[in-house]
Amino acid sequence: MNYPVDLEKLINYYQKLPGIGEKSAERLAIATLEFSEEEADEFSKAIINAKKNLTRCSICGHLTDSEICNICSDDARNKNIICVIEDYKSIFSFEKTGTFMGTYHVLNGLISPMEDIGPEDINIASLLSRVEKLDNPELILALKPTVEGEATTMYIKKILENKNVTISRLSYGIPIGAEIDYLDNVTLEKALEDRKKISEY
Amino acid sequence: MNYPVDLEKLINYYQKLPGIGEKSAERLAIATLEFSEEEADEFSKAIINAKKNLTRCSICGHLTDSEICNICSDDARNKNIICVIEDYKSIFSFEKTGTFMGTYHVLNGLISPMEDIGPEDINIASLLSRVEKLDNPELILALKPTVEGEATTMYIKKILENKNVTISRLSYGIPIGAEIDYLDNVTLEKALEDRKKISEY
Repeated sequence: MNYPVDLEKLINYYQKLPGIGEKSAERLAIATLEFSEEEADEFSKAIINAKKNLTRCSICGHLTDSEICNICSDDARNKNIICVIEDYKSIFSFEKTGTFMGTYHVLNGLISPMEDIGPEDINIASLLSRVEKLDNPELILALKPTVEGEATTMYIKKILENKNVTISRLSYGIPIGAEIDYLDNVTLEKALEDRKKISEY
Repeated sequence: MNYPVDLEKLINYYQKLPGIGEKSAERLAIATLEFSEEEADEFSKAIINAKKNLTRCSICGHLTDSEICNICSDDARNKNIICVIEDYKSIFSFEKTGTFMGTYHVLNGLISPMEDIGPEDINIASLLSRVEKLDNPELILALKPTVEGEATTMYIKKILENKNVTISRLSYGIPIGAEIDYLDNVTLEKALEDRKKISEY
């Protein structure tokens, strides 16, 4: 395609974004041209500022524009409950549920012998030092159900074995709204394994 | 959602783009944070430059970064064939076919008595003055099959009636790959009306 140079550049940058193909990038670039002068200016600045001002929380590793993130600095959050996640992006998903009132800890990766990633390569030491300062804390391990997720879960469980820490993991099971007939075998197996007595409901 | 301020701004701008909902805007904003410093800088500049440098071709109304667009200034294009369109965006679609070697004329709107848009509100005068300078030109009216599209087609046909201009319109019919059973009535009716003898093929 023979686009004007400045349009082509913009299309190329949109195409670097996830899930944006050639056709969508063209549509987004044209829509950007239809922004007002001021909007285009603000959008352009927003990219630079987000990149420049956002760092990681020194406690939990979440995205923040100050030293400590808005969750760790919120007095209403229960600091004794820590949800351990691989990536800060999961925090947005948990926060959208609106029901979790604990805090988070971002590991920034998972243990993977295959890729030579050990416990020292991810934020486990900082998790331990957080846990040690707490009285009877609860850790919720919210790691994905893969070999790496399981290895990391097992490692954390082991090093905290003799400390006074309650450790749980997210339940596995049938997603709400799913058809049982179309579920994969492993999910169904886990849903059976993790079955709950109706009285516990 | 309690996003860091700079992330929220970026999400808000992505959400102004067509087809980008809240969830996608979050995904795109986070992906932008994962750009390198240089990439983010270039992306930001691309927005400003596209907005600043792109104008309309003084001949056809297409997007261009110089006075005359790359199509009107291309000696290989047949200046005697003009494809008349509502909006410059259609040019990208036609160009992707790779088969049209004529030029374009962007009306920048359609005649609409309902919305009080008359022939003088769209680029028809400039079309006429282009046509008058040509010898035996062909106009291909590629306007959408709505009341406004038809009104504009009829108007252009009428004012050029006694001039030596061949006027055609795009064919209506069954889109390639469509199931006849699922076609709407009007398309099917048009496909019947516009039927072609197999020998013309």
